[in-house]
Amino acid sequence: MTSTEAALNGAPDAPAPTDATAEALATADHDRGPHGYSHQKDQHRKRLRRIEGQIRGLQRMIDEDVYCIDILTQVSASTKGLQSFALQLLEEHLRHCVADAATRGGEEIDAKVAEATAAIARLLRT
Amino acid sequence: MTSTEAALNGAPDAPAPTDATAEALATADHDRGPHGYSHQKDQHRKRLRRIEGQIRGLQRMIDEDVYCIDILTQVSASTKGLQSFALQLLEEHLRHCVADAATRGGEEIDAKVAEATAAIARLLRT
Amino acid sequence: MTSTEAALNGAPDAPAPTDATAEALATADHDRGPHGYSHQKDQHRKRLRRIEGQIRGLQRMIDEDVYCIDILTQVSASTKGLQSFALQLLEEHLRHCVADAATRGGEEIDAKVAEATAAIARLLRT
Amino acid sequence: MTSTEAALNGAPDAPAPTDATAEALATADHDRGPHGYSHQKDQHRKRLRRIEGQIRGLQRMIDEDVYCIDILTQVSASTKGLQSFALQLLEEHLRHCVADAATRGGEEIDAKVAEATAAIARLLRT
Repeated sequence: MTSTEAALNGAPDAPAPTDATAEALATADHDRGPHGYSHQKDQHRKRLRRIEGQIRGLQRMIDEDVYCIDILTQVSASTKGLQSFALQLLEEHLRHCVADAATRGGEEIDAKVAEATAAIARLLRT
Repeated sequence: MTSTEAALNGAPDAPAPTDATAEALATADHDRGPHGYSHQKDQHRKRLRRIEGQIRGLQRMIDEDVYCIDILTQVSASTKGLQSFALQLLEEHLRHCVADAATRGGEEIDAKVAEATAAIARLLRT
Repeated sequence: MTSTEAALNGAPDAPAPTDATAEALATADHDRGPHGYSHQKDQHRKRLRRIEGQIRGLQRMIDEDVYCIDILTQVSASTKGLQSFALQLLEEHLRHCVADAATRGGEEIDAKVAEATAAIARLLRT
Repeated sequence: MTSTEAALNGAPDAPAPTDATAEALATADHDRGPHGYSHQKDQHRKRLRRIEGQIRGLQRMIDEDVYCIDILTQVSASTKGLQSFALQLLEEHLRHCVADAATRGGEEIDAKVAEATAAIARLLRT
């Protein structure tokens, strides 16, 4: 389901895309479409909803003057959740997108590996 | 008001405690009450709301089959946001809670420093 | 030549194996032998020697009572150096070992990707 | 013992400082002298020597064509060692330097806390 369809369907969990997003979708984009993570979407959504709940919990903790250190513990838990999500996504990406590029042969594998490494570097530096 | 009570009150978006509640908390729990970060609550709330928006954006990206690497970039941005929040909270904690313990003298400073270091270790390991 | 043998040979500074030794290793141990990083060995050695120098610098700083914060800055530089080394090694591993497994087909790619992801998780958690 | 004395003593573990270091020492530097970590120098030296050994081990692994993933595991161990060292140094710094600034009163505490937070941020970003 594209975001345009999601918007038409009025799905509450999939808010209307911004104009920029819609425009990007309108152009043929070979980077959209079923990806490596497709068959685990439900698991990803569940994980992200839990993290979203933790972030809302952090706002509540600020409102309620909770002790700084307890808030920091919750930040660590949220960050850990985000990292687990990233690692799972990365594993699926390597297994499908990168492996597919290798099977097709040619120079695409170099670009795919460089791209994945840059993403890992960004994760490491945060 | 505990977060469980807050949840029961049905406030969906991190309800602000009344003054009466805040006062009650200050007496009931020495870990509650005005902390080092009190005067920057608005900034913290704003920052956390932006991170919450990013997490919702991640769910949208999964729904819309966005390319894995672009999702990972957004994860890095969210993690960076959480770390900046943690660092600001930590700075205020050191400036107020830890410095106050030092001024009061006695053994409290050792406990406060050990506690802060453990929190930093948790942030480093995620 | 195992590292124990290398130590017995008394070579103080990471002795280069002879061609004969390298060949022996290739047959004796499937995890030894020319890997993805083979053609960049000189670059890796140079990078690691610089990191080793930084670690020796840290010992000197301790001996000389250098200010704590300046030591921490040097620790960050060394850690950054180790991470850059790890990322380069990982990129070569993905480009060669993982891509090769994909080309060969079969179930090996799953094992290789799981192994690489676990290594990335270890890097993230430190 | 200053680095100049170390050089005169010909201590093998404390190599002669570069000209730049010697010059910095020659000027009166209020950031030198016994710091928070002074009474744990032996422990720090031991820890750093172990990390130095791990970095030399990494060079040996490259020379011996060890499998990429095993090298990455060793990198994670070295990084973990550096982080433990940094955390211990930081804890001593907070307990002594930062707490002292708080006790002395005045504006120094703000500068010390900002400096410590910046150091923690550098550790987090690597």
